[in-house]
Amino acid sequence: MAEAITPRKTDYNQWYVDVVRAANLADYSPVRGSMIIPPNGYALWENMQRTLDGMFKATGHENAYFPLFIPQSFLAREAEHVEGFAKECAVVTHHRLTTDEEGNLIVDPDAKLDEPLVVRPTSETIIWDTYSRWIQSWRDLPILINQWANVVRWEMRTRLFLRTAEFLWQEGHTAHATEVEAMEEARRMLDVYATFAEDFMAMPVVKGAKTASERFAGAVETFAIEALMQDGKALQAGTSHFLGQNFAKAFNCMFTNQQNEQEYVWATSWGVSTRLIGGLVMTHSDDQGLVLPPRLAPNQVVIVPIYRANREDDKAAVLEAVERVARELRVAGVRVKVDAREEHRPGWKFNEYEVQGVPLRLAIGPRDVQNGVAEVVRRDQGGKESVPLDTLTGTVTSLLDQIQRGLFNAAKSRQDQHTHRVDSYADFQAALDAGGFVLAHWDGTPETEARIKEETKATIRVVPFEREGGTGEDLLTGRPSEGRVLFARSY
Amino acid sequence: MAEAITPRKTDYNQWYVDVVRAANLADYSPVRGSMIIPPNGYALWENMQRTLDGMFKATGHENAYFPLFIPQSFLAREAEHVEGFAKECAVVTHHRLTTDEEGNLIVDPDAKLDEPLVVRPTSETIIWDTYSRWIQSWRDLPILINQWANVVRWEMRTRLFLRTAEFLWQEGHTAHATEVEAMEEARRMLDVYATFAEDFMAMPVVKGAKTASERFAGAVETFAIEALMQDGKALQAGTSHFLGQNFAKAFNCMFTNQQNEQEYVWATSWGVSTRLIGGLVMTHSDDQGLVLPPRLAPNQVVIVPIYRANREDDKAAVLEAVERVARELRVAGVRVKVDAREEHRPGWKFNEYEVQGVPLRLAIGPRDVQNGVAEVVRRDQGGKESVPLDTLTGTVTSLLDQIQRGLFNAAKSRQDQHTHRVDSYADFQAALDAGGFVLAHWDGTPETEARIKEETKATIRVVPFEREGGTGEDLLTGRPSEGRVLFARSY
Repeated sequence: MAEAITPRKTDYNQWYVDVVRAANLADYSPVRGSMIIPPNGYALWENMQRTLDGMFKATGHENAYFPLFIPQSFLAREAEHVEGFAKECAVVTHHRLTTDEEGNLIVDPDAKLDEPLVVRPTSETIIWDTYSRWIQSWRDLPILINQWANVVRWEMRTRLFLRTAEFLWQEGHTAHATEVEAMEEARRMLDVYATFAEDFMAMPVVKGAKTASERFAGAVETFAIEALMQDGKALQAGTSHFLGQNFAKAFNCMFTNQQNEQEYVWATSWGVSTRLIGGLVMTHSDDQGLVLPPRLAPNQVVIVPIYRANREDDKAAVLEAVERVARELRVAGVRVKVDAREEHRPGWKFNEYEVQGVPLRLAIGPRDVQNGVAEVVRRDQGGKESVPLDTLTGTVTSLLDQIQRGLFNAAKSRQDQHTHRVDSYADFQAALDAGGFVLAHWDGTPETEARIKEETKATIRVVPFEREGGTGEDLLTGRPSEGRVLFARSY
Repeated sequence: MAEAITPRKTDYNQWYVDVVRAANLADYSPVRGSMIIPPNGYALWENMQRTLDGMFKATGHENAYFPLFIPQSFLAREAEHVEGFAKECAVVTHHRLTTDEEGNLIVDPDAKLDEPLVVRPTSETIIWDTYSRWIQSWRDLPILINQWANVVRWEMRTRLFLRTAEFLWQEGHTAHATEVEAMEEARRMLDVYATFAEDFMAMPVVKGAKTASERFAGAVETFAIEALMQDGKALQAGTSHFLGQNFAKAFNCMFTNQQNEQEYVWATSWGVSTRLIGGLVMTHSDDQGLVLPPRLAPNQVVIVPIYRANREDDKAAVLEAVERVARELRVAGVRVKVDAREEHRPGWKFNEYEVQGVPLRLAIGPRDVQNGVAEVVRRDQGGKESVPLDTLTGTVTSLLDQIQRGLFNAAKSRQDQHTHRVDSYADFQAALDAGGFVLAHWDGTPETEARIKEETKATIRVVPFEREGGTGEDLLTGRPSEGRVLFARSY
């Protein structure tokens, strides 16, 4: 509590860590690169999961579970895939510990596995091995499966939520009879992610396709949603891949089509992870701490009763009013926490819930009970308002809605303000240094893309689906461009 | 579909595998000891999770997430714990793959970890290391945390759901200021498990304490629920441990009590896993396949429309009636699946849903529409009934309730019938060979327990909380016994 949050202006990266730690969203662990997600952070993840899971099921998907361990030889089957993941794999080589002569615990040299097992960095290989057994004919298609799981990608430089060796995610893996259907699925799931980001996280995103150099290892096309953080850097918030027949070929997954011919199956995969929590924090929070959009906030309202310890009559009246208000709000579907702990003073609690980002704070004291009102404070704007108890439920639900829309609108104007259209390399570099998205012409070659990345540290985040500006000339080479692409420095 | 299910009498173990495979609850994987949980099995697990999660939250617990990897040195801290788990640990020793001179994928010898990491077999060590940082004073207690996670215990002989190297589970880990409070928590959570087993799984259980030799590695007391399977073997279905101060001492986790003194924290842990699915299958299923208790069945009712492909008018009328019935049932909170696929005949579907254990099957054809009825078949008892559409919703909800209670009652009478009270070693062996629970007197020594286990393969499942029969004499030694304990051969 006593620890102050570093202001964004002073040190943005430290501000982020301070907000995450102060709101108890994550904690460091003694395991290099792995973090602990305490109840506050996990409750937020549960709300995200529940919402996304409902959206996946509404689009016809079912959940399943595949093994954590992947035989090393599986990874080797798809050439680009292994190239992309081999360098960051945690590898299980033994299945037993024992003690040495001095009684120290050691890895048992006699328990070496015949084939090393990789802790899944993603599950395409184990799943397509399975699908090759599940799929015989067009009647078995499509398969629309999602998995909620932990994955491990060994990272040298880690940041809470944004980049950790182990993270939680969902990975959809679908199998289709036709290219068109698989492509539609990949686009549909990107739309689901964009809807979730904008309507629930209140985080505006740009949708588009990755360039070849930024594609998922093994994909034919990678689609992504990109969001702009408050420091002007982009965050890739979700990806959906059209995998073509690459994995079907690697795992010999064929089906008999309606013309009785053998064909390789078409595939997609798509995922979002606990990284979204980092994006949420960096989109809305301020120098006082976390700010949560109401639709995902574990507690949408906290009520703090106020009375003096020596006034038992006040206490009874206040607690009675608080419980009544809480009950009515809960009936209206509002997630309410009552904090009646006596070991902490109201001021301490106000600060606590401000740091934790609870959207609305209500306080009710003896005079409020007499006057039939409650004091209401919005986390996003501050400022106290006295609201009659009779109309409190309606006011609260309306305020929660206003906050949700207000957060999105604020983030959207910030994104608009910090999206620059530039036509010279000097302007391009200046815009990047100022921070934000930069829409510029590109000649479509990996060489130019690589040179820009090396010189400016900016990458093409996406080639937007809605490509504006018509044709033009590449910033660097002057060669023709089919339209502006989205550049930024990124997380 | 064509594959027949082996009858229980012919080969009980094969029957179990056939039921699980035919109902698509689990599939083998190429990773030794790990299984795949396809959508049918996972939907059942999701229903179990949702129910248990609600019960945990109703008793004040919150969810969190701790790292998958545990430093080898952590495991060594608690002597009994490491003794219990060292032999079955998957160990991560490297963090990268590379290619050798011939281009083969190999574990990179230059990427060896300084300290090996164990894939969690259970999380007491990593969690108590964390708690030692989170807990300072009595104000920080209790901590009531649960985690839904995958764990790995290397098993040489595996069986789908019952014993797999990787499995899904929940593990509760709580921290308390007093011994009494921790002991109450351990008992409370065993009660939660027993309620879940009996009221949702319809699986009667016996509650009690494990003997010292059967305790969790590191526990002071292990409480368990034991269920009786149809082959007369016991299944340990859930355990709750009172850990005393063992892990607090191993991880130096102390708190300042209200008298301003330093004390070690008291602990519990408790867990149930996907093993419960195996118990569910073996409690209720029959030679036709899976039988599911309605409260956990992903689909409680399946409706099959019946019409000839060349009669479009019939089709329209039937489908309209089917959709109306489905809508009404869903409004009443019933989970309904409509199977209107035309590529399969009704008889094929009837068989499919029988094998999958859907509690109620409805069929509606043109004549049913004319007569305003539906044909209803119970999975547990078979036999068709014609039910008027006007009263169908009430009939269905009432039937689901009857099935739920019927399954419990049938399992309970079977358990009663196969619970034998014996007073001689000859009768004891005969009762074990006949199959079932055996309540017998025991002198309380590990020596006698070990001798009985060696000679009969039976173990003491629990010392029941409700211990019947008063004092007596040990079967083998004739020494005094404080009451009967529950013996059985077990999974």
